[in-house]
Amino acid sequence: MKTPQEVVSYMLSNDAFSKWMQIKLNTINLGTCELQTTIHADMLNGFEILHGGISYSLSDSALAFAANSYGFKCVSIESSISHLRPVKNGDILTAHAKEINRGKTIGVYEVTILNQDDKKVSHFKGTVHISQEIW
Amino acid sequence: MKTPQEVVSYMLSNDAFSKWMQIKLNTINLGTCELQTTIHADMLNGFEILHGGISYSLSDSALAFAANSYGFKCVSIESSISHLRPVKNGDILTAHAKEINRGKTIGVYEVTILNQDDKKVSHFKGTVHISQEIW
Amino acid sequence: MKTPQEVVSYMLSNDAFSKWMQIKLNTINLGTCELQTTIHADMLNGFEILHGGISYSLSDSALAFAANSYGFKCVSIESSISHLRPVKNGDILTAHAKEINRGKTIGVYEVTILNQDDKKVSHFKGTVHISQEIW
Amino acid sequence: MKTPQEVVSYMLSNDAFSKWMQIKLNTINLGTCELQTTIHADMLNGFEILHGGISYSLSDSALAFAANSYGFKCVSIESSISHLRPVKNGDILTAHAKEINRGKTIGVYEVTILNQDDKKVSHFKGTVHISQEIW
Repeated sequence: MKTPQEVVSYMLSNDAFSKWMQIKLNTINLGTCELQTTIHADMLNGFEILHGGISYSLSDSALAFAANSYGFKCVSIESSISHLRPVKNGDILTAHAKEINRGKTIGVYEVTILNQDDKKVSHFKGTVHISQEIW
Repeated sequence: MKTPQEVVSYMLSNDAFSKWMQIKLNTINLGTCELQTTIHADMLNGFEILHGGISYSLSDSALAFAANSYGFKCVSIESSISHLRPVKNGDILTAHAKEINRGKTIGVYEVTILNQDDKKVSHFKGTVHISQEIW
Repeated sequence: MKTPQEVVSYMLSNDAFSKWMQIKLNTINLGTCELQTTIHADMLNGFEILHGGISYSLSDSALAFAANSYGFKCVSIESSISHLRPVKNGDILTAHAKEINRGKTIGVYEVTILNQDDKKVSHFKGTVHISQEIW
Repeated sequence: MKTPQEVVSYMLSNDAFSKWMQIKLNTINLGTCELQTTIHADMLNGFEILHGGISYSLSDSALAFAANSYGFKCVSIESSISHLRPVKNGDILTAHAKEINRGKTIGVYEVTILNQDDKKVSHFKGTVHISQEIW
């Protein structure tokens, strides 16, 4: 079985959109990970703040890495996000994924994104289906 | 008060990330809109299918346009998405936003994304806060 | 394989809490059902309106019946509800469940509750895991 | 302004459905509370396990008490729950509500329910609208 680091390095190296977001992997362990990115102009919406889709995408990548870290392929079923605070161009976001519960076929994870001032900008909950297929 | 077309044309022309996604506005009316995009390689994840964040982002843009169409500025509070079917490079996605309910300060919208074969690929529900500020 | 009517009659006859809520089954078909109940004083909260838990419970029963109607046992994984309008003592609520998507192992359903004036009081989305176990 | 204890004692004393659920208030502070109840036969569903609506209702009461503890009236807008583990007749459930974020008009809370063996049985996230009306 691959280690969490091996699985996620492989996933990230093939993940074109996470690369477009310039996501860096700070830490990865079983069921948890920390990602980081810096907001650039292409990520903003019509209010000139971060498009909510980027906070979601960063959280969704963190969910994928945390859930797949055990070496079994997982697919997201359902997820929700609360947008708590606007994010501006140049802000540095850190996503912290933690495991709420992991059963035989279903896993539930939470991802909190903080800005450079350690203020929460979003709160995400995601549910994955855990397959028996190995990375 | 601006028309739905005026509000959304203005929003879209300033929305850098929606432009990166090459979103086209098919139709816009009070509380409803239809958007379209074609998936390209930069939008894929480590499974070589569409990153869930793009389906979410397309839905979130559709939510924003439908909710703001009345001419009052709305901000997303909470949203959730169910991923129903994988999307591949080159697929053409159409997002259909409809209004579930619009009260004085809170609006609830649903966005369904279909692929070029009219198969549902995702189902999104979003809640917005309606301000008194005019576009 | 049991018919939808047989499965749901059996489920309802053993469902103590749905009986406490005095739920009546109006219609049941593959993937869809309609339930009805009348609000009584025991169901109210500290604002003297219906406790949100009752709208949720009615929706959750409708989800269970619609999802199990195919004859395979389904268990709820995740669900969300938007409370749209207050409900008062004596109001008559009708829950309409419909299928958003049904895959091999995951089903997604939507339940809308209307009051006696056909006004939406809540909007519910539920995700179930479909087992191979037969009723 | 009333204290958290005063607000919640008043709310609970008028909350017929929370009383039917035999909810006991263990602790209440600004933005947080702990509730407890013992499962009885009227709360079970057709699988002879706890109806998901009771876990939701207990969580929703915990949300209401935590959010209203500041003395301003709050109403639930949207909430979601993940059911993690079956609950049986006689089980003792404890609900722990904590504040994720509280802005000027929107608050986000999380409620975790544990059983008598300290195992998580559900995970709930709720969003409230905070009014200026005082209890």
